[in-house]
Amino acid sequence: MTLPLADVGEDASFDPVTGERTGAVPHSTPEEVASVLDLAARAATPLAAASPAARAAWIAAAADAVLAASAELVELARAESGLGLARLEGELTRMAASARFYAAVAVEGSYLGVSRDDLPGGSSLVRWNVPVGVVAVFGASNFPFGFGIFGHDVASALAAGCPVAVKAHPAHPRLSVRLGAVVRDALRDAGAPDGCFEVVVGFHSGLRLVDSPVVRAVAFTGSQRGGMALVERAARRGVPVFAEMGTVNPVLVTPAAAADRESIARGFADSFTLGAGQFCTKPGLILVPSGHGFVDSIAEAVSRVPAAPLLTAAIAAAYEGGVSELVAASAGSAAAPTAGAAEPLPGFSVVARSIPVALDRLTAGSRLLEECFGPVALIAEYDDLESALAALERLQPSLAASVFTGEHDADAAGAIARLATRVGRVAVNAWPTGVATTWSQQHGGPWPATSRPEATSVGAGGLARFVRPVSLQNASAEQLPLPLQPENPWNLPRRLNGRLTLPE
Amino acid sequence: MTLPLADVGEDASFDPVTGERTGAVPHSTPEEVASVLDLAARAATPLAAASPAARAAWIAAAADAVLAASAELVELARAESGLGLARLEGELTRMAASARFYAAVAVEGSYLGVSRDDLPGGSSLVRWNVPVGVVAVFGASNFPFGFGIFGHDVASALAAGCPVAVKAHPAHPRLSVRLGAVVRDALRDAGAPDGCFEVVVGFHSGLRLVDSPVVRAVAFTGSQRGGMALVERAARRGVPVFAEMGTVNPVLVTPAAAADRESIARGFADSFTLGAGQFCTKPGLILVPSGHGFVDSIAEAVSRVPAAPLLTAAIAAAYEGGVSELVAASAGSAAAPTAGAAEPLPGFSVVARSIPVALDRLTAGSRLLEECFGPVALIAEYDDLESALAALERLQPSLAASVFTGEHDADAAGAIARLATRVGRVAVNAWPTGVATTWSQQHGGPWPATSRPEATSVGAGGLARFVRPVSLQNASAEQLPLPLQPENPWNLPRRLNGRLTLPE
Repeated sequence: MTLPLADVGEDASFDPVTGERTGAVPHSTPEEVASVLDLAARAATPLAAASPAARAAWIAAAADAVLAASAELVELARAESGLGLARLEGELTRMAASARFYAAVAVEGSYLGVSRDDLPGGSSLVRWNVPVGVVAVFGASNFPFGFGIFGHDVASALAAGCPVAVKAHPAHPRLSVRLGAVVRDALRDAGAPDGCFEVVVGFHSGLRLVDSPVVRAVAFTGSQRGGMALVERAARRGVPVFAEMGTVNPVLVTPAAAADRESIARGFADSFTLGAGQFCTKPGLILVPSGHGFVDSIAEAVSRVPAAPLLTAAIAAAYEGGVSELVAASAGSAAAPTAGAAEPLPGFSVVARSIPVALDRLTAGSRLLEECFGPVALIAEYDDLESALAALERLQPSLAASVFTGEHDADAAGAIARLATRVGRVAVNAWPTGVATTWSQQHGGPWPATSRPEATSVGAGGLARFVRPVSLQNASAEQLPLPLQPENPWNLPRRLNGRLTLPE
Repeated sequence: MTLPLADVGEDASFDPVTGERTGAVPHSTPEEVASVLDLAARAATPLAAASPAARAAWIAAAADAVLAASAELVELARAESGLGLARLEGELTRMAASARFYAAVAVEGSYLGVSRDDLPGGSSLVRWNVPVGVVAVFGASNFPFGFGIFGHDVASALAAGCPVAVKAHPAHPRLSVRLGAVVRDALRDAGAPDGCFEVVVGFHSGLRLVDSPVVRAVAFTGSQRGGMALVERAARRGVPVFAEMGTVNPVLVTPAAAADRESIARGFADSFTLGAGQFCTKPGLILVPSGHGFVDSIAEAVSRVPAAPLLTAAIAAAYEGGVSELVAASAGSAAAPTAGAAEPLPGFSVVARSIPVALDRLTAGSRLLEECFGPVALIAEYDDLESALAALERLQPSLAASVFTGEHDADAAGAIARLATRVGRVAVNAWPTGVATTWSQQHGGPWPATSRPEATSVGAGGLARFVRPVSLQNASAEQLPLPLQPENPWNLPRRLNGRLTLPE
């Protein structure tokens, strides 16, 4: 695609609850994007040279500033996303906590991978991880805070020492620009290098980031189509795109768990309609043992789910189209689809749906195996567990899967092991929709759940996306960079002649 | 490309010293390749479940078998590569040692990334790395042992728990098949899962590996054209290709190092003509301070380099063509190219060359910035160090760079830091052509030196290419896989609630 010389468009802002246009944000001009990238490139060297502790202090200042502006930011997010205030307040608070977490991961220092070998003949070889350079981030529609302007990708890139240019998501442009200003100003006031963080607006601005020679990595959260388009575009110049994309996350209920039918049915309805079904970890399919009344129980639970607004008119339209396709593809099932409560539907609101399908309809190439964003999920009954596991292996690999088991369930370990070959996270007797920001989190999965199965966009492993290893051979003491100096000034875990050693 | 239903071709074997055809190996049939892949897929689960110590024992048995067959294998390698016996004996011995090293890295266990967090509410989240599945390896022409059938890629994939299917390199088909049989039989006799290692022959067999749904990662060593073709082909189904490709590795001599002119000139000629210049770490360009006589000293050293056979007739022809292009692109330099000694030239032998170029000819898009495989290198004089560093930043990123410095050289640290942003390894007062297999080795570099700048194909980090993380949430003790069990049966370094702990 040839980019236009000028971009005079804007991202309009809508209230999903009413459907009304409430404002607009002009697109960044090509000159503005160039200036953002130029400043970011200049910030790369000082940001890389800064100690993790210095970066942590800057990130903490930004987290403080976001919390201080919480009321204003949450109101902006509510007005543009239609998500509830309580949800958004919690999401903002968790965003600030996550940012501090990534800073703490940097300070702990394992991510630097410091290693030193003494070689025969008196020379040495050292290896450590260096920041890759400027990172472009494309945030998600569905988590205006968590996967947005100062979300997981941004904070982990900054913590790893990379300047960040973020593209504002068109679902919440006013929030993006305001939140961007709060973060940028706080970083600057705390002493972070000028230009190490900025927001740009507009589709073409995003492409300019991906095409820029100063951008060395891209992080993206969104659809397979959007993610793979960026992967292909950036591949032309060897730039990695860490895309977390939408797939169907399955839930398996073992026969021994059938006794928990009612709580599983309610839990499933709650989980797949959480945030109006706009979670990348939404359970999109549940496999239940036949003959236990699961289909009726789930239908009953779904019928009580209130209508809720989706993020944009386009998402709501895609949902209605997707539901029609799923219903058509499920034809022949013994049971009929169920609709949630259908109060008057203003704005971009939609009704939740659950759709029974026959297990043998879950075949490669079927529409049933592709994500439908929004509050819809499939139910399939199985007669024997092996046929359920075989069906799960026909799905696209996904971010997460859940298994509901009985106590000392002989089927559990095998089901877990087989699911682990297909997904990034297996949750046992828990729904997939909660993602804790901890050291042990894996929010990723085999392609096409992500473009990089080795990467995670939540948890301590997130920093690894934004560094690469360098070796330095036969350097004198004065030539060693700070993290490699013998006195260990950053107090890092190190590998010395192959032996992992902890700081004192 | 549509693959033929049958392949009745063969890889012919030539002696590069005489140029004579000495035999041939038939291509694997499509059925044979399918059978290799089917067995490899079946081996994936038991190989992944085996302890690192069990895998280490199997790999050690294969290393023993290779050493026991050393005389036969080295003679086969000599007859097909034209490389000297001493070099090949050393390479085979190092190959066996490297295989044991990767096994030891697996046993040490940091590569498993075991981590456990206790979450609020009494549940837990664990994370560890699982093998990705079957790996296809495309070895290199230039290291029949080191980067061949049982080289770095193969041994690190097996150590990480992945079955391996290797494509025989057409430069040494007879060695590939024989070495493959030695390794396969030794693994089988030691008790490794059937089918966990096999060799296939022929170009189309290689494409069948890349296209197979059971192959989950590809490792390649060779040209940019070959590597990027595989990257593109495998990207269609989200399979990573770890390609280590050819670029120009630069050497910078600082003004303070000019006093060492004679030893640097001899060392440079030795390094870029080592193995007839067929090293991916060959120094392809040296930047020297003007006015110190470096061009004459290097010409003198090069003029004494004996002619040597290249690996294949095609490589020899590409070398002669490449040298002509480089000479044409260097036109206008003050000094003339130098040729090595030109004894009678049987077989695929060629004469070494050094080609002076003006610094300002090193510009983006010039042929001078692209690798020419074989014993040729460029020399450029600079007047001020900044212009030399600026020229280095116009090169393609590369695997390695060398800096020659004086004692307490004020220019050294800055030059090292700038080179470190462009390469995988910086060698100080050392030539880039030696690559030790240790914990701290980085044999990689930014694209296009490799397709995956975060990866290394030599050193402990090599295993990371062949695993991906999985999280398991809320599992009961009996559902935890072995490496996660509280008693730590594999004696692994672990991260517990964020704290790195060493085994006792």
